Amino acid sequence: MSIDILIHKIKEKNNPSVVGLDPKIEYVPQYIREECYEKYGRNLTGAAKAILRFNIELIEHLYDIIPAVKPQSAYYEMYGPEGIKVLAETIKYAREKGLYVITDVKRNDIGSTAEAYSSAYLGKTQLDGIESDSFNSDSITVNPYLGTDGINPFIEDCNKFNKSIFVLVKTSNQSSGEIQDLIVHGKPLYEHIANLVNTWGSRSMGKSGYSNIGAVVGATYPEQAAILRKLMPNTYFLVPGYGAQGGTAKDVANSFNKDGLGAIVNSSRGIMCSYKKHHFPENEFALAAREEAIKMRDEITKYL
Amino acid sequence: MSIDILIHKIKEKNNPSVVGLDPKIEYVPQYIREECYEKYGRNLTGAAKAILRFNIELIEHLYDIIPAVKPQSAYYEMYGPEGIKVLAETIKYAREKGLYVITDVKRNDIGSTAEAYSSAYLGKTQLDGIESDSFNSDSITVNPYLGTDGINPFIEDCNKFNKSIFVLVKTSNQSSGEIQDLIVHGKPLYEHIANLVNTWGSRSMGKSGYSNIGAVVGATYPEQAAILRKLMPNTYFLVPGYGAQGGTAKDVANSFNKDGLGAIVNSSRGIMCSYKKHHFPENEFALAAREEAIKMRDEITKYL
Repeated sequence: MSIDILIHKIKEKNNPSVVGLDPKIEYVPQYIREECYEKYGRNLTGAAKAILRFNIELIEHLYDIIPAVKPQSAYYEMYGPEGIKVLAETIKYAREKGLYVITDVKRNDIGSTAEAYSSAYLGKTQLDGIESDSFNSDSITVNPYLGTDGINPFIEDCNKFNKSIFVLVKTSNQSSGEIQDLIVHGKPLYEHIANLVNTWGSRSMGKSGYSNIGAVVGATYPEQAAILRKLMPNTYFLVPGYGAQGGTAKDVANSFNKDGLGAIVNSSRGIMCSYKKHHFPENEFALAAREEAIKMRDEITKYL
Repeated sequence: MSIDILIHKIKEKNNPSVVGLDPKIEYVPQYIREECYEKYGRNLTGAAKAILRFNIELIEHLYDIIPAVKPQSAYYEMYGPEGIKVLAETIKYAREKGLYVITDVKRNDIGSTAEAYSSAYLGKTQLDGIESDSFNSDSITVNPYLGTDGINPFIEDCNKFNKSIFVLVKTSNQSSGEIQDLIVHGKPLYEHIANLVNTWGSRSMGKSGYSNIGAVVGATYPEQAAILRKLMPNTYFLVPGYGAQGGTAKDVANSFNKDGLGAIVNSSRGIMCSYKKHHFPENEFALAAREEAIKMRDEITKYL
């Protein structure tokens, strides 16, 4: 099953971290931007081409030390259809390099529409007798607000096409508590969502004992993570909020099980923009990202 | 303000309904599909071109009688980057025809990422000193699960670029109650979300007395709609679930205020696939859609 593949890659690299590919054009070194503007125009196409080059070079310098990447769809959608073409190309290239690709789309809708989203990202698109891939990822993030019938199509495709999803449970942002911490029958809402994730997960179990239905649990809420860890023993956690958002290696330790598994920690800006923070020459941005990714790996594994 | 523009269009056409453009390839008449496969290939590009032709002909036959269209992003994403190009072209064409375009994306994320989504759909994308449009819509749907800091960027762009959003409050699907109806301090969760929508709306009020921060309230839950109507007097409701999903004209009446305003009712499949249901010749699909849209308008306005 898909989650077993992710675990295999994590063990192989001894690295439970995922690099977020959230390529705002400002993050791309100036010389790449200028070359692409020159060649394709100072417009969305030029920007999209620059982002693709940035991503490919990052992946080339990272794929042997990390198990997974997480492209954030928003940073491709903002560059229009050309940006989204780059999302598809990034997913494809990363998978060719053996990386597990979690496309961060946080999609959600009623059943019939969730089916369409699932076809787009996990399954296949049916086309008068032909099956096509659109954004063929290993996994996506999903918002649970619509309940089971908005999740079912994804679970079906997890089983049919060997994929996984991560359901938002407790997000890393400051205001996540406004809704997620509301008390329902004496417990915060996120614990109720956790129970739903357990139920959904029981329908898509891997051989590892973990299910293909994971949970998003922010690094910025370590106490809640500890509670959720106990509540969802068979659920893999995708942990955003490390680094730039303030979560530390000690904070994310709460998201792991005693076997050192159960979580994969994301850092986006911290890795992508490491060359700026550590004053590398612009053309060594990928080298800087690699060094930072190694540092992150070592910091996280130290606490496991 | 944006919501005033929508209200103006609704009054002008005397029609508080919106046609959903959810063009699964199966909905497109066979002769259009075959022509496009012939010309562009039996693949995602051919399908996308067929969908664009379908949408354009629908818009041409509807724009003088309806105030708005609601393209559902999932049905473009499933056809890959080519499908998403058609989404952008559909939005552009519908706006040129004077229609108010609500792009149904149900996006949601942490603040910095919500900013990127807002740039993609409501605002502008900044590009080394150049401002670009990506999917310039009048409005989008938004999921509230991440709380205020995931909503703020959209509110800012509503004010800056004269746009609106519709926040999921009580969705039309069967399992919507699993999370949305959970009891928090003696009241269902959707009422708490309604209060948040009121707060968010107070920061973006139109001259009409309605705010640019609307709510999604399913036609399939008329009793809840009546309660929400009282709870959110200044909020415009986007009402899905009419027709194919089972909501009737009487059901949706609860979503309107006494002034006959306050709601816009969506039908997608019911209009798009009317030619199949009523056995029109395939090449009269747009005519069938027009007749069905007129019928829907007359049914809804009868109860106001």
